Amino acid sequence: MKERIPYVRHVYYYETDKMGIVHHANYIRWFEEARLDYMRKNGADYAAMEAQGILMPVIDVSAAYKMSAKFEDIVEVYTSLTSFNGVRAVFEYEIYSEGRDHLLTTGRSGHCFVDEKKRNPLNLKMRMPETYEMMTQLLEGDRL
Amino acid sequence: MKERIPYVRHVYYYETDKMGIVHHANYIRWFEEARLDYMRKNGADYAAMEAQGILMPVIDVSAAYKMSAKFEDIVEVYTSLTSFNGVRAVFEYEIYSEGRDHLLTTGRSGHCFVDEKKRNPLNLKMRMPETYEMMTQLLEGDRL
Amino acid sequence: MKERIPYVRHVYYYETDKMGIVHHANYIRWFEEARLDYMRKNGADYAAMEAQGILMPVIDVSAAYKMSAKFEDIVEVYTSLTSFNGVRAVFEYEIYSEGRDHLLTTGRSGHCFVDEKKRNPLNLKMRMPETYEMMTQLLEGDRL
Amino acid sequence: MKERIPYVRHVYYYETDKMGIVHHANYIRWFEEARLDYMRKNGADYAAMEAQGILMPVIDVSAAYKMSAKFEDIVEVYTSLTSFNGVRAVFEYEIYSEGRDHLLTTGRSGHCFVDEKKRNPLNLKMRMPETYEMMTQLLEGDRL
Repeated sequence: MKERIPYVRHVYYYETDKMGIVHHANYIRWFEEARLDYMRKNGADYAAMEAQGILMPVIDVSAAYKMSAKFEDIVEVYTSLTSFNGVRAVFEYEIYSEGRDHLLTTGRSGHCFVDEKKRNPLNLKMRMPETYEMMTQLLEGDRL
Repeated sequence: MKERIPYVRHVYYYETDKMGIVHHANYIRWFEEARLDYMRKNGADYAAMEAQGILMPVIDVSAAYKMSAKFEDIVEVYTSLTSFNGVRAVFEYEIYSEGRDHLLTTGRSGHCFVDEKKRNPLNLKMRMPETYEMMTQLLEGDRL
Repeated sequence: MKERIPYVRHVYYYETDKMGIVHHANYIRWFEEARLDYMRKNGADYAAMEAQGILMPVIDVSAAYKMSAKFEDIVEVYTSLTSFNGVRAVFEYEIYSEGRDHLLTTGRSGHCFVDEKKRNPLNLKMRMPETYEMMTQLLEGDRL
Repeated sequence: MKERIPYVRHVYYYETDKMGIVHHANYIRWFEEARLDYMRKNGADYAAMEAQGILMPVIDVSAAYKMSAKFEDIVEVYTSLTSFNGVRAVFEYEIYSEGRDHLLTTGRSGHCFVDEKKRNPLNLKMRMPETYEMMTQLLEGDRL
């Protein structure tokens, strides 16, 4: 199995709520941060995709909260691409406390690819074949 | 079936992202707004619960995005309590465009009840029997 | 002096932070909500402006916090246009607790007008003369 | 003059708005991130302050926007403590694009110190004399 490099992140004060812990909606944002970091590091840069007029909107998202992150915690987000066919992509996430001590949250997000102008679904294989290849290999690596 | 009164809400400018639509994490926040509004209107006020030292954290959440909301849209969120036993509660959400024209997003959130000080799970039946009754009736009404 | 109609708003749970009060950055967002509501109600709809390819970015903003808003509070935001010449606009804000009991926050924001495509400054008098007139009258009304 | 080490930060996708740039309220949050990072690195850890029952709320804040940050930009925030007497503190901020190429935003925030329980103002010199000393030296260093 290939070694996974997490996306590491400080918890900000403004991410807490009056319960004294991180507000649950922020983890959905962390998934996004981790996903874009993961794509960038694996040669499927989302900014480049948008520069080509291709958006990758979220079509579904879920999170299960096991332990809560607190102000000043450092969290590690492990991302995998678990499904991809050029039309749809699914990413899965595990958020751990620093040093992978505790599993805090798991989650997944489903995506499609759309043309920025027409807002129609598209197949990445047609529009960005190299990125398609990159993501196919990424999928296989993550599946090992 | 009882008539449902939605939680109605303007879309704010700062809730959009560079795709020109509402960022997906904000719908999770709208679920919260709608849930607390729904509880308040049905006699199970969450602020009163917190005043009794009881928190109702989110243990899981999911959303499916069908159409996107835009700046200046008015959205209607329909909330139902679909499971409740004093220890766990599940709420489900449907977000429509104004006039219930289009279904934009569906979602659900699972919750437990914990003591604010000890952060231990508790049974609402023991700690707030009247609110427990209210929520039990609400569950039955929503099930009709 | 003309009667002012405030923008009224519930405080959301996710707007609080671990101090138990509304996080200070959220008031800047409320200024925006109130400003856009005020423009819309006074015939200078910002959505219409954007539809014409004109943006009104913020060039400076300030806030002074006197008392803090809490979860479930209802706040009233009074907005005035205090300076406007077609090129620049200044809005001022007063946020009160419900019933105008306590002054919570005051603030102001400065804006210019730019072309959405070129991102160059423009004079609203040239591009949207009717809106320019509307805002000029608004300025005079607010100054009374 | 002492060398300043900035707080460095990626711009997240969800921080943009439909103008395609970072929403202005987010810079206020970056000031907070930078301030807490600056305090931590200079031995006046805010988390330690809160652990002692002392809060440092914001009493006023301002920002002037010169150029806008975009998705995927890396920004550098330079923080200075420019006023401090144990009762009040003022921090100033400069946000640059990566490599200090362009000045994007300047800002300041004023703070007091309050007792977490009583919410009364307090003098840090009395309650945390070592932190008071640290901040006094920091002030002098930043003034050079």
